[in-house]
Amino acid sequence: MKIITISREFGSGGRELGKRIADKMGISYFDREIITAVAEGSQLDENYVEAVLDRGLFRDIPITVGHSIAGATSIHHTTQRIISEQQRIITEMATHNDCVIVGRNADIILRDFKPLKLFVYADMPAKIQRCRQRAPEGEHLSDKEMAKVIKRINKSRARTHTYLSPIPWGNKEGYHLCVNTSDTDIKALAELLADYAEHWFARKDNQ
Amino acid sequence: MKIITISREFGSGGRELGKRIADKMGISYFDREIITAVAEGSQLDENYVEAVLDRGLFRDIPITVGHSIAGATSIHHTTQRIISEQQRIITEMATHNDCVIVGRNADIILRDFKPLKLFVYADMPAKIQRCRQRAPEGEHLSDKEMAKVIKRINKSRARTHTYLSPIPWGNKEGYHLCVNTSDTDIKALAELLADYAEHWFARKDNQ
Repeated sequence: MKIITISREFGSGGRELGKRIADKMGISYFDREIITAVAEGSQLDENYVEAVLDRGLFRDIPITVGHSIAGATSIHHTTQRIISEQQRIITEMATHNDCVIVGRNADIILRDFKPLKLFVYADMPAKIQRCRQRAPEGEHLSDKEMAKVIKRINKSRARTHTYLSPIPWGNKEGYHLCVNTSDTDIKALAELLADYAEHWFARKDNQ
Repeated sequence: MKIITISREFGSGGRELGKRIADKMGISYFDREIITAVAEGSQLDENYVEAVLDRGLFRDIPITVGHSIAGATSIHHTTQRIISEQQRIITEMATHNDCVIVGRNADIILRDFKPLKLFVYADMPAKIQRCRQRAPEGEHLSDKEMAKVIKRINKSRARTHTYLSPIPWGNKEGYHLCVNTSDTDIKALAELLADYAEHWFARKDNQ
């Protein structure tokens, strides 16, 4: 069983890296698919599901049904349902597929599968540059504003993680390998990491 | 120019990893050689030089000459001389050799060489196990006592680093790659990292 989880800073290229590792290894890649599946399973809007999953249990988001707003208890119940559904779907995906899963705290959710856990990060100038290349809609932002956005998103990822694990998000102790993507070629890096992963799993199987 | 610096937690296998990477790449490996060269260059005892380098400028160590103890100013002067001599020797080694340098804050001393900077770490049980294998003289220590020794040495490494760089020792932002050696085969890991390094330098040369 080959399960790789990729936690990553916003703007570090973790998603591209994960996709390329999966391609190179010929295994599945799950990312947005998870949100889509959770939305389908819980019969809720995909954007709403994504917002809930990004904020976690500690902050319920009002759900508007037509013009009325659902009550607090119902919202909290929905939040819990979405989180459980995500957990169920990620576990099911990992049970049936060798795969790379990006984000979604899969490193914690799948801890019993003993996945290979990677953390992908980059220097701030590299993250800003990547964000500019990927999302031209942010072009009106100054570097300082862009850095602020990146920090806010990463802070939110760190916070969600806090509720699931005693090891803080991005703390190297929680991962097998932490890779700085600044000034590296993601494509070549993916090939090297795919080799690393194959070796890691071969050894794991022999133990 | 291929310069790899390896910072490592005590007991993580960083030294063996560094040696193997150097062998695989066919480049020089410097570790104890540096202390020997500093001792020769400054005409001081190797053990004394090592103690000074491990504690840094912020704590002078009395030097005994025969039965008399040198005065405080002279000790401080000697400490500074040893640190400068180390800096000179590491820079000279890197100028004339493609090499792997383990420890000695070479990542900071050689910053202008733009080295590939690795950090090697491991879970505490793995570090304890490695220490037991490598140093049978510690066999009377309990796991708890052994963990205490490991933590003390790592704390000292972290402290020395603090005086040289704004990024704390072991903080992933200061390195290109952080590798957890728990449950891994150092020999195979070294081969993978040698590939990674070769690719990294090839890309650097093309920039």
